[in-house]
Amino acid sequence: MAISKLVIVGGVAGGATAAARARRLDEKLEIVVLERGPYVSFANCGLPYHISGEIAEREELLLQTPESLKDRYNLDVRVFSEVIEIDRGNHEIVIKELETGRVYREKYDKLILAPGAAPARPPIAGIESEKIFTLRSVPDMDKIKAAVDAGAKKAVVVGGGFIGLEMVENLKRCGLEVDLVEMLDQVMPPLDREMATALHNELAGNNVTLHLKDAVESFADSSDKFTVTLKSGKTLEADLVIMAIGVKPEDELARNANLETGERGGILVDEHMATSDPDIYAVGDAVVVKSVVTGTDILVPMAGPANRQGRIAADNILGRNSVYRGTQGTGIVHLFNLTAGITGANEKQLIQSHLDYDKVYLHADHHVKYYPGAEKLAIKLCFSKADGRILGAQVTGVTGVDKRIDVFATAIQSGMTVYDLEELELAYAPQYGAAKDPANMAGFVAANSLRGDVKVFHANELPVDGSLIDIRDDDEFAEGTIPGARFITLPQLRSRLNEIPKEQTVHVFCQVGMRGYVAARILSQLGYEVRNLSGGYLTYKAFNP
Amino acid sequence: MAISKLVIVGGVAGGATAAARARRLDEKLEIVVLERGPYVSFANCGLPYHISGEIAEREELLLQTPESLKDRYNLDVRVFSEVIEIDRGNHEIVIKELETGRVYREKYDKLILAPGAAPARPPIAGIESEKIFTLRSVPDMDKIKAAVDAGAKKAVVVGGGFIGLEMVENLKRCGLEVDLVEMLDQVMPPLDREMATALHNELAGNNVTLHLKDAVESFADSSDKFTVTLKSGKTLEADLVIMAIGVKPEDELARNANLETGERGGILVDEHMATSDPDIYAVGDAVVVKSVVTGTDILVPMAGPANRQGRIAADNILGRNSVYRGTQGTGIVHLFNLTAGITGANEKQLIQSHLDYDKVYLHADHHVKYYPGAEKLAIKLCFSKADGRILGAQVTGVTGVDKRIDVFATAIQSGMTVYDLEELELAYAPQYGAAKDPANMAGFVAANSLRGDVKVFHANELPVDGSLIDIRDDDEFAEGTIPGARFITLPQLRSRLNEIPKEQTVHVFCQVGMRGYVAARILSQLGYEVRNLSGGYLTYKAFNP
Repeated sequence: MAISKLVIVGGVAGGATAAARARRLDEKLEIVVLERGPYVSFANCGLPYHISGEIAEREELLLQTPESLKDRYNLDVRVFSEVIEIDRGNHEIVIKELETGRVYREKYDKLILAPGAAPARPPIAGIESEKIFTLRSVPDMDKIKAAVDAGAKKAVVVGGGFIGLEMVENLKRCGLEVDLVEMLDQVMPPLDREMATALHNELAGNNVTLHLKDAVESFADSSDKFTVTLKSGKTLEADLVIMAIGVKPEDELARNANLETGERGGILVDEHMATSDPDIYAVGDAVVVKSVVTGTDILVPMAGPANRQGRIAADNILGRNSVYRGTQGTGIVHLFNLTAGITGANEKQLIQSHLDYDKVYLHADHHVKYYPGAEKLAIKLCFSKADGRILGAQVTGVTGVDKRIDVFATAIQSGMTVYDLEELELAYAPQYGAAKDPANMAGFVAANSLRGDVKVFHANELPVDGSLIDIRDDDEFAEGTIPGARFITLPQLRSRLNEIPKEQTVHVFCQVGMRGYVAARILSQLGYEVRNLSGGYLTYKAFNP
Repeated sequence: MAISKLVIVGGVAGGATAAARARRLDEKLEIVVLERGPYVSFANCGLPYHISGEIAEREELLLQTPESLKDRYNLDVRVFSEVIEIDRGNHEIVIKELETGRVYREKYDKLILAPGAAPARPPIAGIESEKIFTLRSVPDMDKIKAAVDAGAKKAVVVGGGFIGLEMVENLKRCGLEVDLVEMLDQVMPPLDREMATALHNELAGNNVTLHLKDAVESFADSSDKFTVTLKSGKTLEADLVIMAIGVKPEDELARNANLETGERGGILVDEHMATSDPDIYAVGDAVVVKSVVTGTDILVPMAGPANRQGRIAADNILGRNSVYRGTQGTGIVHLFNLTAGITGANEKQLIQSHLDYDKVYLHADHHVKYYPGAEKLAIKLCFSKADGRILGAQVTGVTGVDKRIDVFATAIQSGMTVYDLEELELAYAPQYGAAKDPANMAGFVAANSLRGDVKVFHANELPVDGSLIDIRDDDEFAEGTIPGARFITLPQLRSRLNEIPKEQTVHVFCQVGMRGYVAARILSQLGYEVRNLSGGYLTYKAFNP
């Protein structure tokens, strides 16, 4: 059945993409975009950076206007227009004009829901204070910026996820004192805890006070000061508070229309992005997606997937069979001088999914060490024990993180194994990488473990039987070692074998795991049962900060 | 048959890797590494950068010494040791000690040849001058550095490939005047000519005089000046000349031993890196490899493949079935403020291979435009017409080039199609990319073309029938357009259809190809036969500098 009218609820990432795609596929279709806020297609991910002036011009964030979308795509875009009801029987929606209060109905042949997700605002005592902000929209940003520009000196950021960390960075850039409160024992929950250590160190190094395993008990706004009381009993004074404890899918409209929703919220869709009503599609932060890696239902409020889903929904509505492959959970965050990224499943998710995984850690220079400016990357790679398929990767470092995440993301998308990583032919000149790129190295380390060439142990399972040997150099040993370790450098190893008893499993470690691998190969071929500490002393320090 | 002695000829990239790998696999194997030069395992790719002092310490380039390799890997490394004969019948090689002149024989069970490739030095009149240098080894580097440090003012670099361009950059960094002479009509032959335009512009912008389609006729070294005469008749004065016109595989030892070699030189090996003698393997710049994309025999003197081949040769010698998958031809070069990279086949190779390919061009910001510092990437993507398999990618730009090359390289390795590129979930935050990354965009543009959603035309096949329409904005048009184009902006298009005759094919173009795609979709749905200029005006300028 040919359709003549498409209505889209929400005009930012997924909604705007769906509208543009629909127009490119059908020049004659009537397309109406209803946006509750004052702006469509704005640069959501840029909001924190205008607050600090890093993005100087506010206009830069307003990518399109209703007029520009009319010009290019002949779209009927209506801002300040909230959809308050879906009348599925009549194929109509009910719209409230927020500026005038007028309520009216609009027909649709097909409907796309792209309402996004709303920042959580828990019912804490004092939460209604005007000094407490969330950040989702341009007006939210304007309010925070006004508070900062008015001379705020101290801020408390609640929540250490993407938005929380970005706000910390930008508030510090404005010169504020910043406390960061996070309920978990780590920031950036998409990372595993040991991989978040680098972020904790970066926060400390930039004078951000981090309160882990803590939460807000109450806010108190008195005449002369505003106080945040934490569950631990600590009290923090603040001129402003950013609540960034996560987002909730805006699924109320869908639920009220009896569309199927997920157990933990979110609109359920099939692989074509259709909801339980075949004339209604949904995309973006409000929908439940399948994890590419674990196959489980997840909520991933990210711009990339939202854009892809918008395109796919429009495709299917206009007669193309276009399939959404699921979401990998690729994400990246910039924090002062550090970058942390992830793609695929983290170890926490793999444990929950009961997948038979294994993992390795490594540390590799982002480009050859001999070229000026080399910086260490810390990499954690999770992979299937059965066949080596890559399940997830986490990378932290000063530079070159995004590149390796993108290589791993591409590898996961194509179902590559750790053996494939070994064979990747990546771009190498001294400025960019190494003949054996860190992505190759991750493959080598993982494949060595999978093939049984070296057995590894991890820093959270240290032996206590005196079998730990530090095989690093004198100067490394002098700067600290793992308690209880004996010290036999790698060059000495072959000549000091008599000091190593064969009765017990030998546990060797070096700085990053490379020399430990060599030592383990020597010892295992000489009849020892031996294990190498994955990621070496640096990973030990990440587990034991 | 267990082997007890492995001899390796050549101790740099492939040879050193093979030796280390062999030791890790077999602690008891006798491993002898014979290196003609004074150094093993040095940082070949770093040599140009020490000449300018960008890499300040010469020692940084000497990654390993015979002593360090003895310590860690228990290798018997002999420098200044040239292998002058292989006695296959007796499983012996003949070695000449270059410092003493002593000649002796050494037994082997298995032999690995890793002799590398030598810079070409054609028999041009005057070529024997001491002012003419090639760059392959540390002593070569030392000589060039000495000439520069002695006060050289003017240099002529002959050959615009990787080494030539890197030398141009580093000699300019030293303050020299530099002329670059290249026989072809472009530098960086691995790129297609239009993609090399950015390099030509970068050379011009950095006051390097580029002589394309020219070559050296003769050198003349008189008492007061050294002159380079070109075939065009131009004469250039110089204090030093770098010959960087390419390398030749060092296959003489192999040929003298009647091992099979390729038509254009190079040692022939199977997928296990074994030569025609099952007890002799060969790796690195001296061997002929198969192109992953075209399947043809190629010579690719790059460090990454050499390292992989070294590992694979050692694996097979020590009983593991390890297969070399072929070479993609991934390469990258840094030139002043520009980076140019390639992976897979270029268009020239695809034409030669008679593959049924198609191509698209695009220009995309390396990260979102609204975040400070966005720089345009120029991308050329070649893919199979039949199924969309990615065959090759070329990227130039100021930053973010290496990342996209690595994503494309990974995609090619895994056999991905342009449709897969559309679905990649890459790392996005404003500092790193976009919700639709340039790699996704390349997929969209190519898939749009393959699906027939938009027909493209290329800047080397411009229509001359008056059917060209510039749909850009006023300010873009004012800065120049394609001769003969009419001017109808995209926002005006729908209201000025009466000006566009339906009888002839309409050819639209915009700045980079995006708006042209929208215009083409509008027109084609309204019954026009229409084509969009791939890559838009920017690609037109690359074809017509």
